[in-house]
Amino acid sequence: MRIEEIDKNFVPASIGDLQLHYLEVGAGSLMPRGLAWYEQDKQFCRLPQAALSSLSEGVQGLAWHTAGAQLRFKSDCLHLALQVELRGPSNMPHMPASGQSGFDLYLGSGRDKQYVKTAIPPYGADKFEQLLFSQSQAEMQEFTLNFPLYNGVKQLRLGFSPGAELCAASPQAVKNPVLFYGSSITQGGCASRPGNAYPQLLAQQLDFQCLNLGFSGNAKGEPRMAELIAGLDLAALVLDYDHNAPTPEHLEQTHYPFYSLIRARQPQLPIIMMSMPDVDLKLEAANVRRYIIEQSYKKAVAEGDKNVYMIDGFKLFGKSYRDACTVDGVHPNDLGFQRMAECLQPCLARVLRVEA
Amino acid sequence: MRIEEIDKNFVPASIGDLQLHYLEVGAGSLMPRGLAWYEQDKQFCRLPQAALSSLSEGVQGLAWHTAGAQLRFKSDCLHLALQVELRGPSNMPHMPASGQSGFDLYLGSGRDKQYVKTAIPPYGADKFEQLLFSQSQAEMQEFTLNFPLYNGVKQLRLGFSPGAELCAASPQAVKNPVLFYGSSITQGGCASRPGNAYPQLLAQQLDFQCLNLGFSGNAKGEPRMAELIAGLDLAALVLDYDHNAPTPEHLEQTHYPFYSLIRARQPQLPIIMMSMPDVDLKLEAANVRRYIIEQSYKKAVAEGDKNVYMIDGFKLFGKSYRDACTVDGVHPNDLGFQRMAECLQPCLARVLRVEA
Repeated sequence: MRIEEIDKNFVPASIGDLQLHYLEVGAGSLMPRGLAWYEQDKQFCRLPQAALSSLSEGVQGLAWHTAGAQLRFKSDCLHLALQVELRGPSNMPHMPASGQSGFDLYLGSGRDKQYVKTAIPPYGADKFEQLLFSQSQAEMQEFTLNFPLYNGVKQLRLGFSPGAELCAASPQAVKNPVLFYGSSITQGGCASRPGNAYPQLLAQQLDFQCLNLGFSGNAKGEPRMAELIAGLDLAALVLDYDHNAPTPEHLEQTHYPFYSLIRARQPQLPIIMMSMPDVDLKLEAANVRRYIIEQSYKKAVAEGDKNVYMIDGFKLFGKSYRDACTVDGVHPNDLGFQRMAECLQPCLARVLRVEA
Repeated sequence: MRIEEIDKNFVPASIGDLQLHYLEVGAGSLMPRGLAWYEQDKQFCRLPQAALSSLSEGVQGLAWHTAGAQLRFKSDCLHLALQVELRGPSNMPHMPASGQSGFDLYLGSGRDKQYVKTAIPPYGADKFEQLLFSQSQAEMQEFTLNFPLYNGVKQLRLGFSPGAELCAASPQAVKNPVLFYGSSITQGGCASRPGNAYPQLLAQQLDFQCLNLGFSGNAKGEPRMAELIAGLDLAALVLDYDHNAPTPEHLEQTHYPFYSLIRARQPQLPIIMMSMPDVDLKLEAANVRRYIIEQSYKKAVAEGDKNVYMIDGFKLFGKSYRDACTVDGVHPNDLGFQRMAECLQPCLARVLRVEA
């Protein structure tokens, strides 16, 4: 029994007989954001092509996942649709295809954006098309489309109703992007749709461009990664780097050096360190790791760093319904991600000098 | 690329060489709860076998989904595993297999339960086995295992370490079950795991047995369904019946009669009516439907009913991060479900006469 046969709420809208004009994403007003090296490489990849071979095999593969990528534009189109070819079908048992491979659309500008729709690939599909938006009278609106969190995009085309205008979106409240470096949790595992991963929630709430460098299982704090990050012009850096260090010793040997390499090249960059959120089922191990991160933080402060901050992972999930925050004891669900965003928001707003 | 190959956090625990003794679920201390007619029919079905043919085809199929079913027992086992044959593989694009077809385990008694693990079928599988729990010294503990929300269970066996004791769980705080009648939202679409559907969250927080009669796309307020509900000995009834009425007229013609049929046979039963939560994208339609439900409620009160309550669906998702509460504009994710549970909890606690 396929659920969409008996519950009409599960049937995706069909494009039917609509006449649409398709544009390839990757030029003009359809340049993706959230991919720091897109302008240079013209690839839907989170890392520069020239650097891939200098990173681990895991990072090389995961760099093609489009977590954090967005399209932002204005249009008065009557209809908007997308056609996409993904790098593969969805295959994760505890993250729905909507989060792994879906696109979610918001309308509006600044902080006044409203979620509208999620384009979700049918079960098992790696190509699909979907109508995302319709209005009855041409009105100029601002669109924000989030890319898949745990899949890659081979080709993406947007379909506009004939005669629609298309132009650049309004500037964001924060000029430079905010970069998040970390594990599967940073990458967005296991949000139900891209906009609900915690970096995207924060990007929406505080209106900044998010660079998501979350590498599921592969955030090992490599110096090469720190160099790449240090070369970017950022508004802030969140180091959600804890989980994937294979041992506490590895974490200890890499955490401060990772920070330090970036700090040496970016003396003014606000850096927020955090420890992992899912502590309850492995309290002892989480304590050891939090201590290591705290030592990094304290050392940085002792050395006179006035722009380093620490978020205690034990506080990320809050108090009530804490138990309901993960799908599997490790990966946050949308509740866990909302709690993380809420916890980080005041600190991030402060360093970005915007209203919380 | 399968994610479990590159992120070890995604690899399910293997049962390996463990010697386990498997028991068939459905007898003795392994009698499922949350299936009101199990003792009579010995079927993992949410409705009585004799009544199935008198209900719609959709309800007949969905009755086999095990939303709300639970196993509760005490054991001092060193290891616990499950072997299950489901009615089909997972196939929903916006609900992960963990929620559709998974089992989640809690340890502890009363309100002091802690989430431990989710047994998740591998991608595409309709049979699987998984180790759920291990401890190094035999200690008697209370186990609560939630069944899949959007799949059926053909056969379920639990594996215990040899020599383990097995006995009945402690009684729950509320003697009779609480029944939830409604749509896909009631059934738990789209929670990331069974314990995170809003009826299960409430059952855990207030310690009651939950009867989940959510029928995705098929909660049409049929008199036959009202009769079945009216025949049960309940502590409270939540009528989350709104979404699936094909038109406002259908809702108007069935909502009060549905309530009224149950009230005639259950003069003392607390009945909580609620309107749907996902109102923002279709405000006008939601207003019409809320008005109809409010009229039912007001009519009941005017007739002297002192045990009927109304929850305003517009308030279910709260205020902050409201936009992040659904996966698709219709179905709540874990954040939406937590907000719903939080909103309902005071009212439900009051009618059940337990602490909120």
